[in-house]
Parts: sequence; structure tokens; C-alpha cells
Amino acid sequence: MAIKSVRCLEWADDRLRLLDQRVLPHQETWLEYQTWPEVAEAIRDMVVRGAPAIGVAAAYGMALAAKAGEDRSVAHAGLAASRPTAVNLFWALDRISALPDWSFEAVLREARMIELEDLQMNLAIGNHGMRLIPNPARILTICNTGALATAGHGTALGVIRSCVAEGQDVFVYSCETRPRQQGLRLTAYELMAEDIPFASIADGAAASLMRAGKIDCVIAGADRIAANGDTANKIGTYMLAVAAHHHSIPFYIAAPSSTLDPSLTDGGQIPIEEREASELTHIEGVGVAPVGCPVFNPAFDVTPGELITAIITEEGVFRPPYSF
Amino acid sequence: MAIKSVRCLEWADDRLRLLDQRVLPHQETWLEYQTWPEVAEAIRDMVVRGAPAIGVAAAYGMALAAKAGEDRSVAHAGLAASRPTAVNLFWALDRISALPDWSFEAVLREARMIELEDLQMNLAIGNHGMRLIPNPARILTICNTGALATAGHGTALGVIRSCVAEGQDVFVYSCETRPRQQGLRLTAYELMAEDIPFASIADGAAASLMRAGKIDCVIAGADRIAANGDTANKIGTYMLAVAAHHHSIPFYIAAPSSTLDPSLTDGGQIPIEEREASELTHIEGVGVAPVGCPVFNPAFDVTPGELITAIITEEGVFRPPYSF
Repeated sequence: MAIKSVRCLEWADDRLRLLDQRVLPHQETWLEYQTWPEVAEAIRDMVVRGAPAIGVAAAYGMALAAKAGEDRSVAHAGLAASRPTAVNLFWALDRISALPDWSFEAVLREARMIELEDLQMNLAIGNHGMRLIPNPARILTICNTGALATAGHGTALGVIRSCVAEGQDVFVYSCETRPRQQGLRLTAYELMAEDIPFASIADGAAASLMRAGKIDCVIAGADRIAANGDTANKIGTYMLAVAAHHHSIPFYIAAPSSTLDPSLTDGGQIPIEEREASELTHIEGVGVAPVGCPVFNPAFDVTPGELITAIITEEGVFRPPYSF
Repeated sequence: MAIKSVRCLEWADDRLRLLDQRVLPHQETWLEYQTWPEVAEAIRDMVVRGAPAIGVAAAYGMALAAKAGEDRSVAHAGLAASRPTAVNLFWALDRISALPDWSFEAVLREARMIELEDLQMNLAIGNHGMRLIPNPARILTICNTGALATAGHGTALGVIRSCVAEGQDVFVYSCETRPRQQGLRLTAYELMAEDIPFASIADGAAASLMRAGKIDCVIAGADRIAANGDTANKIGTYMLAVAAHHHSIPFYIAAPSSTLDPSLTDGGQIPIEEREASELTHIEGVGVAPVGCPVFNPAFDVTPGELITAIITEEGVFRPPYSF
């Protein structure tokens, strides 16, 4: 299976380079980072986003801390404070902090391993997931779960990529994903780059497409999955799960096992990040809403496990009732 | 009950004046129209929008045609071709065309009657509807259904206004309503002008608010209601109805009887307008999506009558099974 060229991060010349996803698709700008506080800020500002990708970025942030001889627990805490919901971030930091050796070489080796493993996990997710997708298939997805959200290939979008690579006939309906429009900006960018047929839609159009019989299945990524399968993902995911349930359409979650958090019995314990009002009120720096418009802007929601037809990880396909 | 001052259209000096809703909330620009083709273009371009308001605007467009001594059926056909879904447009045109007298005075009198009756119907809708709303109430709504969408007061937002006028404690969650953001731009503008407490949300956040127990009821407007209660309204409305049903939350439609189309047995017969891709890909003229991004952009969806707890018109509150 060919791995396409889109990447969102790379380690080069002892620096972490991140493709600035805030200005995609119109500008392809790579930014360089030499200190862990800069990396933490880049994660907070969403220069890099997507649960697996921020895990990899944080691991390289730890490598920068080790290189500078900084205190391991300070760097760990600082990077962990960047964003609260995606557990992959904490998983990667814990893995680095558990190393017996805090040498730059050891930390960098582990960060590279985390990156490589993420790519491998995504390819395995694609292999498992594509067996669930009919041929032909009209697939609905949300947010960006592709190469830009991971070390490569992607999770939910990786399953779609794997279908395409196997010659399956797919058409993707891609939700815009307000407020930050990762679907309209990033998923569209990846799909266009690979000539995968698709249409972008307003988030509110998804349910009516299901009613019109235009959707065969829904597939989304995840930011954290509790022991019972309750899944935090981009705001709007739960709405798709409810609508899919109403229309008896399969609803799948695709995520590497680094997204599992068995320490949480259910999704009610997952911290949900609320972000600033300007994400909704301003687009590309232009104000849309009345000045001072009050906003409620949760970045994620939780879909209960019982609405999820299957959860696809690199280890295989899991069905409810879930017990991770 | 006090009628607040926001208006979206007025007849003055033998001209139709429209508040340009494309540039609200940042600019309050009134545009003047002296011919019916200009009015048709204004409706098509959404200078004026909202099913009742475009009915009133079309009626005044007919007055301009009569004033110029133009052919009645040509003006009727031209105005009717502006937008396909809201039946109020055709209702108003039919009413004008049925006049025995095509004098300017007669047509203008009828157009003014249509405007005045719309305001009266909205006030009656408010009176009927507010009895359905608990006190206190957290109310979810979509699009703009207020004074900017009607001759005044509003339909769904009119019910909210009536609650506020009666001293009820309400909090409004207002869906942004992509692609054209009528909620974020226009409903927020009206709510802020009257100090009604609210928060704007991304459309995708609505279902998770319901799951969190933050919504007591949903109320939306309508563009056309078939004999069986199937209701066409702004894209995203159906999604809210499905989510409300899943959470056992009442879902109400508020609309004047001019929105009823008993000639259609069900919603499958309602023509659904598809609008240009740029509504999704560009915001305030700024491109967001990759250039050439394919888009599917239906402006409306249909909510089946069985998901609608009640339909509120000026004649009262109707419950399923509907038979209009």
C-alpha cells in the first residue's frame, strides 16, 4: 500500500518541524521548534492538531527538553498542560518519562519509535477497518483524521485511504467541522491531493443526507476512549452518532490503542476542553458575529459506546459491549 | 406586548426599502428598489430572507410592477422564480394576482395588508407558543426567525420574545446555522439588541447540549409545511429534530398559516433549493476551503411530521398526526 507524501511533522537538524495547520490549505508553511515550551504553545494554538499527531509532537518536545538538559518532570508537566482531552498526549509523555535514561539520544530514539509506531498502527487500522466498508460505499466523516492528524495515513481517513488503495469505490461526504473547519480545510486538502471523490457539506446537512439514503456508514476518529467505549471526539461527532443510530447506519470509530484510557470507567470522566469564543465568531481573522456575542464553544463531545457499531484499533475490530 | 424596533423592510416614497441582511451585523445598510426585477434579485441574493419576509417583499415587488404598468403575470413569474422552497413567496404572489383590480393603489393596499397580517400572525403565534414553553426554559433554536425574517416579532424567535415579554426566564442556545450563519449573525444581533440571554454555538454542538441536559425544548421556523406536517426549514433543522427525539425533548415548529402548503401530501414533494458552493467555501469573501473544493449545499431539509411535537400557527397549536 503506497504511503502518500502529506506529512504534518518531521524531526530534522535536531529540531521539530511542524506544518502550520492554521494556515492550510492556502499556505504550506513549516515552522521550526527548538524548545519544549514552543512545542507546548504550538499544540495549544493548534499549529499541530489531531490526537495522534500531538502525541508525537509532545514526544519530540521531550527530546528538545532532554537535549537542553532541562528537568524532565517540568517539561512533562508543561507539555501536558497544553491540551486536556486527547489522551495520546499524556500517553506519549508518560512513555518518555518512563525511560530509565534521560539522555537526548534515548529520548529521541523513543520519540522516533512513537512516530513510527503511530504510522504502523494507522496502517493496521486501515487493514482492519476496510473490511467493514461495503463496496461501493458513501462514507460520512468529520474533522480531519488523515495524515495531517497522525504520523501518516490517518485513522478514520486512513480506513478510507486503505479502501481506495485496494481499489474499492468510495465517495466521501466530509463535514466542514465548525468551528475550526478541519474538514473543509484539511480533509478536503488531503482528499483533493489524492483524487478521492468527495463533497464537503455543512455539519447540519449530515442527518438529511442519511434520511435521503446517501450514506452507507459513518467513520470518525477519537481523542480519548474510556473503558466502556465512550468516545470523546471533535464536537459534532455525537450528533452524527445519534443520527446514524436513528437511520440504522453503522457508526465506526477508528483510533490507535494510544487513544484508549482504561483508567476512566466512562466518558463522563473525560475532560472536555472549552476554547475561546473567537473560534466561532471570527474566521480567517474576520469577525462574523456581533461584537461581544456570547459563545459556548466546547471542542469535543462524548459519544456513548452503545451508539458505536465498532471501534477499530490496530489490534482489530471491537464490538459493544466494550471493555478496554 | 411591546414591539421592538428592528425591521427588515419598509415601503416609503413609493419604493421598497430592504435592510441588507448580507452585511449584518456589522453594517446596517438600507437598499432601495424601484422595479420588480430588482426585488426578485434581492430575494435571490438574500438581501431579504426568511419565508414570511420574502413573501412580503414579493408583494411589494408586485406593487412596483403595477405602478410601472407592467404585465401582472410576467412580474408574478419573475418574482416566483427567485427562490423555490419557501411557499410564502408563492402564497403572497397568488394573493396579489387574484386581485380583481391591477391598479397600483389596489396592489399596494394588498401588499400592506400582507405585511400587517404577518405581524399580527406572529404576535398570535407568540401567544399560542409561549404556553408550551416551561419557566425557566433553556431553548435551542436555529437560523433567524425573528423580526429580520418576518414583518416583525418573528415566528420561533417571536415565541421566545413573547415569553420574555411575559417575564418568563429564558436562555437561548442559538445555532450558528452554516453555511450563511443566520444564527451567528442575525439571531445574535436581535438577541443582543433586546438583552435576551443567550449563547451562540456551532451547529454540531446541539446534540451534546441535549445529552448534557441543557436543553428544555427546541423551536424552529418553517419554509413550507406539507399537509401531513412534514416541514422544510433551514438545513440542520432535521438534525435537531432527530436529536431532540433521541433525548425526548419537545421539538416545535412555529410558522404563520401562509407557510402551509396543503397541496402537497408530504415533504418529499417540497423542492429543496441547492445553492452555490461559495456559501460554504467562502466567508465574508475570504476563501477557506482549497480552491475547487467540491461542495454539496442544500439550503433546506425536511423534518417529518412525526418528529414534530407541535406546530404553532396563528390559529393555535396543532399536534400529530397533522392534517392541514
